[in-house]
Amino acid sequence: MPAVPAPAAAAPPSRSSAAALGPVTPQSMDFDEPLPLRSGASLRRYRLAYETYGELNAARSNAVLVCHALNASHHVAGTYAGQPKSEGWWDNLVGPGKPLDTRRFFVIGVNNPGSCFGSTGPMDANPDDPEGRPYGADFPVVQVEDWVDAQARLLDRLGIGRLAAVLGGSLGGMQALGWAMRHPERLGHCIAVATAPNLSAQNIAFNEVARRAIVTDPDFHGGHFYAHGVVPRRGLRVARMIGHITYLSDDAMEAKFGRDMIAAAPRYSTQEIEFQIESYLRHQGDKFSDYFDANTYLLITRALDYFDPARAHGGSLTAAFASARCRFQIVSFTTDWRFSPQRSREIVKALLDNRLAVSYAEIDAPHGHDAFLLDDPRYHAVLRAYFDRVGQEIGA
Amino acid sequence: MPAVPAPAAAAPPSRSSAAALGPVTPQSMDFDEPLPLRSGASLRRYRLAYETYGELNAARSNAVLVCHALNASHHVAGTYAGQPKSEGWWDNLVGPGKPLDTRRFFVIGVNNPGSCFGSTGPMDANPDDPEGRPYGADFPVVQVEDWVDAQARLLDRLGIGRLAAVLGGSLGGMQALGWAMRHPERLGHCIAVATAPNLSAQNIAFNEVARRAIVTDPDFHGGHFYAHGVVPRRGLRVARMIGHITYLSDDAMEAKFGRDMIAAAPRYSTQEIEFQIESYLRHQGDKFSDYFDANTYLLITRALDYFDPARAHGGSLTAAFASARCRFQIVSFTTDWRFSPQRSREIVKALLDNRLAVSYAEIDAPHGHDAFLLDDPRYHAVLRAYFDRVGQEIGA
Repeated sequence: MPAVPAPAAAAPPSRSSAAALGPVTPQSMDFDEPLPLRSGASLRRYRLAYETYGELNAARSNAVLVCHALNASHHVAGTYAGQPKSEGWWDNLVGPGKPLDTRRFFVIGVNNPGSCFGSTGPMDANPDDPEGRPYGADFPVVQVEDWVDAQARLLDRLGIGRLAAVLGGSLGGMQALGWAMRHPERLGHCIAVATAPNLSAQNIAFNEVARRAIVTDPDFHGGHFYAHGVVPRRGLRVARMIGHITYLSDDAMEAKFGRDMIAAAPRYSTQEIEFQIESYLRHQGDKFSDYFDANTYLLITRALDYFDPARAHGGSLTAAFASARCRFQIVSFTTDWRFSPQRSREIVKALLDNRLAVSYAEIDAPHGHDAFLLDDPRYHAVLRAYFDRVGQEIGA
Repeated sequence: MPAVPAPAAAAPPSRSSAAALGPVTPQSMDFDEPLPLRSGASLRRYRLAYETYGELNAARSNAVLVCHALNASHHVAGTYAGQPKSEGWWDNLVGPGKPLDTRRFFVIGVNNPGSCFGSTGPMDANPDDPEGRPYGADFPVVQVEDWVDAQARLLDRLGIGRLAAVLGGSLGGMQALGWAMRHPERLGHCIAVATAPNLSAQNIAFNEVARRAIVTDPDFHGGHFYAHGVVPRRGLRVARMIGHITYLSDDAMEAKFGRDMIAAAPRYSTQEIEFQIESYLRHQGDKFSDYFDANTYLLITRALDYFDPARAHGGSLTAAFASARCRFQIVSFTTDWRFSPQRSREIVKALLDNRLAVSYAEIDAPHGHDAFLLDDPRYHAVLRAYFDRVGQEIGA
């Protein structure tokens, strides 16, 4: 399948009218009925943090759910009042005049259970613990389908029966696919970017090394480190460094850092920083260990490992999509070696086998897996055009 | 450049006569004169562990030096008496009737200084320490060129003025290239397999994550853990797991492990083993942490990082090879994503720029970087043919 050509114009006309979202405000919703989980366990009660941008129209037909990946949250777009640098993680895509235009769509971001940004997660009190101690490592294993169900319940509460579209990248893309299979009557379109129908052995291997780094950090204390007043920072740093290597393409890393050293002459040290790439990775690791919860890292990488909709259908992805009814836009990036275009093509094939409507864009971009978060003009042009058609369909 | 076709016959005739080497015996040589290092430091005195296979001919013209990579040693081939499973790391290549035939060649394996298998390394007493404590993290940074010089001194002592050939894979290939540049008058042929003219940013990144895992293990004690009676096992395990992922191709890992689980039903755990690939990696990490020295891991990965012969020549690899006089066989493997064929082609180009004689074989093999240690028939046929010509040249 050919790569998507560059758009003829430097930027679509509507782009010039892109404006910032006004200050956004996180919200939350409490659920007292248990959430049954695919593992057989359940979440007794839980809170979901979410944000919305734009206005729900009178027909309640213009809602778009945006699903987040490993280290993101419900804060998809906009900034918080008084915090000018607090842009949401997909702010370049979502806003007034942007490809997912909040003047036309009512956009919803939800933090998934098990995460550490406001929805119920391992740092919260375990209702089954008589002393109300945090879940820690006892937080139940959550899977992509569980998140989809939790998101569906939030939509019920918000009075949204049907979504115009679900959008997600990477692990968020898996949730979008999960929506199409699990709640086919509740969405018109599924847009899945830089994702895969399941993890490869190599993907699982990287996750496992990261988890071992965390779990074997003496400050992990079997996942109950909160009570010890410590954080398994060493493990989190190593986990994030590994992750970062897999998010960037070999070429992008070479172009950005190459073999550049931090000083004119080598220091000849095995422990001091010598190369720029080392400095960059250590910085990323340090930052991450300041804000991310170790138990959440374990849970979310496991959700990635477990995702495998074909498994319940004898390994047939085609059979897994038999229930789907919506239309699809699948996007991959040529240099993404984490979830390569080949993995997206597997999805496309399974959808076509089911005679479902699918557009596929393989974007020639140098940035590897991270490309799905970046402002690549060809990529954004594809999503802009797609959402434009979705908007026309619903009269938004 | 085309991949090497499969040989017409299943195996060359001489292969049927391949026999096991008799029991081999490690030897060692002590050096009292200091070894000046490229960093400006020096190794005051040192011991080199080595092994030899076959017989040095009367003309002393049939010696072949085999250089080892990260976790190997001087024990290249054969077994130790009474230890039937103690085959050397390149036993499938080196022996009577094997591609590097010990009936024709006198083969030498040397353990490099800084390693942990018999040559002077971080576990040995530091002669500058008044109490004779181990070097630990104070062992000086050693580079590929330092190892080449140490190997050259061993050859002086063995009365070998000139090598028929130097052979190495991966980091060993860098040493082979170093020989060609540094002692051009002392070798007839350089065979460099699955190697690179320097590490890419991504290569350095993986090394750095592995080092951080070791250095931040509380049992590392700043590199002086020997005095504490502990070993930074957690860090070594993670380091080895990361390494293993980069040694195998994505496809080979998929073919060998895929998404196979260790039990019929999922356990739904973030810390227990769930997938076969996890079990394999943990096992590799455990084994490695039982025998490998943490300070050696730091030193050897740094030697990889620093290797960059073009650097002293304004970035020109062609200029770096201007001193070379020998003939070259360069080999790469299509699925090696650690040191890809592209990196070998850079070497080939620099050699051709210097009008040096070079054969290049790009072997279509599924096993990734590890292929250089495996018994691939096309790969071994290339080396067999090359060493056959070397043998004919010297009348061996």
